[in-house]
Amino acid sequence: MTLEEKVGQLVGLWVGASADGEDVAPHQHDMSPAPALEDLLPNGLGQLTRPFGTAPVAARQGARSLARTQARIVASGRFGIPAIAHEECLAGFAAWGATAYPVPLSLAATFDPELVEEMTRRVGADLRAVGVHQGLAPVLDVVRDARWGRVEETMGEDPYLVGTIGTAYVRGLEGAGVVATLKHFVGYSASKAGRNLAPVSVGPRELADVLLPPFEMVIRDAAPRSVMNSYTDLDGVPTAADPSLLDDVLRERWGFSGTVVADYFSVAFLEKLHAVAGSPEEAAALALTAGIDVELPTVDAFGAAFVSAVRDGRIDEGLVDRALDRVLAQKIGLGMLDPDWSAEPADLEAIDLDSPGNRDVARRLAESAIVLVANDGTLPLEGAGRTAPRRIAIVGPTAEDPFAVLGCYSFPLHVGAHHPGTPVGIDLPSLREALETELPGVEFVHVAGTSIAGGERDGIAAAAATAADADLAIVALGDRAGLFGRGTSGEGCDVASLDLPGAQGELLDAVLDTGTPTIVALLSGRPYALGSAAERAAAIVQAFFAGQAGTTALAGILSGRVNPSGRLPVSIPARPGAQPSTYLAAPLGRANDVSNLDPSAVFPFGHGLGYARFEWSDESAAAGTVPVDGDVELALSVRNTGERAGADVVQLYLHDPIASVVRPVQRLVGFRRVELEPGASVRLTVRVPADLAAFTGRDGRRAVEPGALVFSWGRSSGELVPAAEVELAGPRREVGFDRALHPDWRVEAV
Amino acid sequence: MTLEEKVGQLVGLWVGASADGEDVAPHQHDMSPAPALEDLLPNGLGQLTRPFGTAPVAARQGARSLARTQARIVASGRFGIPAIAHEECLAGFAAWGATAYPVPLSLAATFDPELVEEMTRRVGADLRAVGVHQGLAPVLDVVRDARWGRVEETMGEDPYLVGTIGTAYVRGLEGAGVVATLKHFVGYSASKAGRNLAPVSVGPRELADVLLPPFEMVIRDAAPRSVMNSYTDLDGVPTAADPSLLDDVLRERWGFSGTVVADYFSVAFLEKLHAVAGSPEEAAALALTAGIDVELPTVDAFGAAFVSAVRDGRIDEGLVDRALDRVLAQKIGLGMLDPDWSAEPADLEAIDLDSPGNRDVARRLAESAIVLVANDGTLPLEGAGRTAPRRIAIVGPTAEDPFAVLGCYSFPLHVGAHHPGTPVGIDLPSLREALETELPGVEFVHVAGTSIAGGERDGIAAAAATAADADLAIVALGDRAGLFGRGTSGEGCDVASLDLPGAQGELLDAVLDTGTPTIVALLSGRPYALGSAAERAAAIVQAFFAGQAGTTALAGILSGRVNPSGRLPVSIPARPGAQPSTYLAAPLGRANDVSNLDPSAVFPFGHGLGYARFEWSDESAAAGTVPVDGDVELALSVRNTGERAGADVVQLYLHDPIASVVRPVQRLVGFRRVELEPGASVRLTVRVPADLAAFTGRDGRRAVEPGALVFSWGRSSGELVPAAEVELAGPRREVGFDRALHPDWRVEAV
Repeated sequence: MTLEEKVGQLVGLWVGASADGEDVAPHQHDMSPAPALEDLLPNGLGQLTRPFGTAPVAARQGARSLARTQARIVASGRFGIPAIAHEECLAGFAAWGATAYPVPLSLAATFDPELVEEMTRRVGADLRAVGVHQGLAPVLDVVRDARWGRVEETMGEDPYLVGTIGTAYVRGLEGAGVVATLKHFVGYSASKAGRNLAPVSVGPRELADVLLPPFEMVIRDAAPRSVMNSYTDLDGVPTAADPSLLDDVLRERWGFSGTVVADYFSVAFLEKLHAVAGSPEEAAALALTAGIDVELPTVDAFGAAFVSAVRDGRIDEGLVDRALDRVLAQKIGLGMLDPDWSAEPADLEAIDLDSPGNRDVARRLAESAIVLVANDGTLPLEGAGRTAPRRIAIVGPTAEDPFAVLGCYSFPLHVGAHHPGTPVGIDLPSLREALETELPGVEFVHVAGTSIAGGERDGIAAAAATAADADLAIVALGDRAGLFGRGTSGEGCDVASLDLPGAQGELLDAVLDTGTPTIVALLSGRPYALGSAAERAAAIVQAFFAGQAGTTALAGILSGRVNPSGRLPVSIPARPGAQPSTYLAAPLGRANDVSNLDPSAVFPFGHGLGYARFEWSDESAAAGTVPVDGDVELALSVRNTGERAGADVVQLYLHDPIASVVRPVQRLVGFRRVELEPGASVRLTVRVPADLAAFTGRDGRRAVEPGALVFSWGRSSGELVPAAEVELAGPRREVGFDRALHPDWRVEAV
Repeated sequence: MTLEEKVGQLVGLWVGASADGEDVAPHQHDMSPAPALEDLLPNGLGQLTRPFGTAPVAARQGARSLARTQARIVASGRFGIPAIAHEECLAGFAAWGATAYPVPLSLAATFDPELVEEMTRRVGADLRAVGVHQGLAPVLDVVRDARWGRVEETMGEDPYLVGTIGTAYVRGLEGAGVVATLKHFVGYSASKAGRNLAPVSVGPRELADVLLPPFEMVIRDAAPRSVMNSYTDLDGVPTAADPSLLDDVLRERWGFSGTVVADYFSVAFLEKLHAVAGSPEEAAALALTAGIDVELPTVDAFGAAFVSAVRDGRIDEGLVDRALDRVLAQKIGLGMLDPDWSAEPADLEAIDLDSPGNRDVARRLAESAIVLVANDGTLPLEGAGRTAPRRIAIVGPTAEDPFAVLGCYSFPLHVGAHHPGTPVGIDLPSLREALETELPGVEFVHVAGTSIAGGERDGIAAAAATAADADLAIVALGDRAGLFGRGTSGEGCDVASLDLPGAQGELLDAVLDTGTPTIVALLSGRPYALGSAAERAAAIVQAFFAGQAGTTALAGILSGRVNPSGRLPVSIPARPGAQPSTYLAAPLGRANDVSNLDPSAVFPFGHGLGYARFEWSDESAAAGTVPVDGDVELALSVRNTGERAGADVVQLYLHDPIASVVRPVQRLVGFRRVELEPGASVRLTVRVPADLAAFTGRDGRRAVEPGALVFSWGRSSGELVPAAEVELAGPRREVGFDRALHPDWRVEAV
């Protein structure tokens, strides 16, 4: 291959599929002008990105369009190598008419990895069906500051939860034959003040014990084939230029053998934003040296000046060859160099991106993800002898907004924003519509009261008056997702405090002041402080952008048709300030006597209620002394003592009373979701390797220390039941990548 | 010495001097019960802390009380070793009747190290006069989050400014024969969310290049004899238990040979708060191993169980001996073991803790520290043909509060809070009183409008009406300092946002809405976002707790008697959120296109106006290429073209366009305050060693890199004039402790 042909494999083009099945066309974006496809073709083209993501294109036309372009690429290069086609699939395939699943924060709230894997297997199958090879998901960033706009894209604030749901996510995609892409490696979520792309102040232990573990778990347990770097810098070193992360940790320590693809424009950002490179070609050399293989979305740094520099010997051609090997190995693994490879979709007619099966999984996910946060008994509205109130005021700006269930990577949101009047391709009932369908006998009176972010107060009095006249008020609050400030949640939509956006907090207080029993329904991308509503509301339901079935599921939970079982993957703080703060905090990171700021949660990580009732009993634990390379076995019986079926989420927390470095007060080391019919019970037995107590010591190595450990069963991180106190015996023992980072569960009906 | 006698030298007692000259008495505090002096005496007692700090005691009586106790200590131990007496002296000697100088944030705002040294030489002399040997100051923490309550105690957000003012501070104290104590070593100011004592997320480069340099500068240039640890943990390791900081950096790399004293209770906190020790004696062993020599304020961890553990060989007696050697060496250096040492004050009658000389320095500091932030020409009110308005409304909660000039370590504040009715020992006119004295012909009408933190809104309308009726409004806002939540600024008085406390922002808006020309006077411990006042106010004056002369100086600035010359040592942000953020930020740490949060300053670091007018001209620079071990010489002429004498502060900033790690966009590398009569001019020449461009690379070593550097003269960090672009030539060169971290200035009248 010529040098140009080699580099051609490492770059791509941001394209959009054609609505009439013609070739894909380059997408014009703000950051840099897109090159013309014809100019690239003679040297081959390694990558095509976002073919379905720029405009409303029906799946079959899009698949044809992509196939035509692939055929051209194969035909015009000397070696006939097709491009890897990438798509976003954070909350489902980001294409017109594709099922809009809940966002990852909701996926995490299900605490149900099996169901998540079922979803992503479907997403993967849909991607494959239209000719896409690589999905740019999941996001494994651990929430460190809930002010960050991308919290909705994450799986919450606990590394174990993120790693567990992330493993399932990747198993589904990869199981469908799609390359999963772990992002953003690493540290993006810890940016200063929650500001998108701001620098990250972090030390090696927090990196090793909080930010890296989800990536390690998923690479070990689910074998993803791609990783995307983080935009940000950690303590001054941009990850896109950091071989200690992209090479030493990822490839050497963890044995990762796939590709590392650049987050969009992040190679060029080494020059333009981070100022660690003096030219685009220097940026390219830094990125390749660090371990990035593919520049996305198109040719910025890997351009003509770079090729010249390699040709002149100013940049080592070996770097190009190393990346090329990885890209070609991936194409071989995908069968793209097989003689019988074809650009044509296998079964064009069978493509249905919002199939009944998809819709059913989206529904089950939404029903499992929504968290009943508080309930004084007002919920459910119907069933067990109850009848819903005659007249319900439905107040607030998310009641009528069909997009209040979608995150900023949900395609229909963009269709709605950028192509007004165009149908979004799927059914998105608003919460009001869903409630009217759910409770046909009820009279709903709707007043918005204020907008999501505008801060208008003129309508608040009318909304309160409507609530005062009703038997019950439902206040629907939250976010509209968007990009770069065009929303209240989403990429570039960071906030200065965790107060509800705009005047929503005032609207909520005005309704609560009426004395009418009030249910707060939060349709949001992040947790918000709720002020006095935590005590005053009759019930609070939190839906983190629960997808196309979100409002129907929420209506079902309110009516009682659905038993809520979601658990909070992020804490809901009592107060809007004192950020950053998460539950995964050392003693001094929690409320203390020496600061007047109290970051305590009003509803802690892991919390969630239901209508079923679960009794825990017969806790048992193995002997008190365990070798540092041994296991702890714990057991618990769970019985559904209520009158309806439901799911309980049994959580296991670890407290290390004395350690050689400061440790979190509690951290999640296991959980199990169990579905039980009324009267049924199960015996849960969990074998926890002592490895899970490991942390990174002062020497920078992860090890288990001898000494006491305290395990607790948790209904949440704030509601704990003693499980066991054990003493680890033996010398400090290092724990490497070869050791599992999860416990083993056994569930027996009893 | 017996083991008990050795350990006795490493501990102390928190005492209070007696108002009638009797022995000092143990102070009862919350954290642990104080032992009785008699119980300690048989083994000697190494330390006495806060003898003047617990209650109003006249200096001579206090000195007699301390001397009596010292005589008892000398008499009762076998070796006749007196105790080192420590006192707080952050903003002057924290004793009854002692001069209350401005807090360190104001000292930094003077940009006048010579004047600061003059102050601390006086503080040191006063400490010596009453028998105190060690002063627990200065604070060298670099502000990283203005929400932190202790910002008032710092010297601002720039390491070079902190190091320069800190050097002067220590030279004064040590020059007077007092042991200066650098604190808090290190990282305290970077606690998460600005919450006092919360954990610190920090990496090795930020630690090395931002947090450590002030300590390094001061140890290198001012030879302090003591260092106090920080309470917090850095990336999981409490500094009190971190030999890599207290031993490797401090003693090995920097050659520090003095004592390391524990911040109060911080040894015990290793067990009680950080959970890295299982018992008090384990905590003591960790602290001694790390390099702490003295437990303060009294015996918590270094108690009987510790002595037993050493005796049993569970803890190495060598650790005790090492600390003992340092303590005794310090006592020898202080002459305390000389045969002619006497506990009696040299000249009891001459003691005057608020001498005319002190008061004069306090006045000059306050006049130099107050920052005229904005002025549309309304100020000064008098002079040059102006006469002050007839009727001035003075509105706001700090107008009548005499304590609004004092920080939380200012003794009179505590007298006022804890001993109501007791005179505080010095004259503290309120701003209203100072203005009435300053402008006797003016009718002042005062309405508070609201309290500092209470949030009352009832009085706002009346305040606005008063302002509307006046020719001019002065709105006096800000803080009342306090401890642990009993104030809006000070230790443990952290805030969730940089909004003005309580309803002060609403009061300010209401007055601005009247249209009456409005001067905003901020008497505060931290910067606050001022909303639309930045555009709407006629003038804004920022006084960071400017001490006993603060209100008089402020009145003098308003009238025009005093020419303002202070410069902001911390940025005043445009918006209250998006914290933490300081001027010392990488490109992505400033406002960027990918987050809607904008942390920009409305008045940047280094900014400050005056009534004199200074013209800069004839900028010159030496050749464009400089060896990496060379110097850059820059020059600038400054002429006072106004009609009155005044001081200008010429600042020099460095920008490193491309570096191997992400660097701040601008950072201060030098400044010079020049006082000029009208028409006078000076030529400033500065030789900047290329060393100052050094930073810590990926290998963890500090070095100068070849490549371009851009120097700018600054009126502030946001108002820059090109000074020079140079190219550093040669190989990357390491810069060790032996290299000066400051430029050399030459000032010639021309």
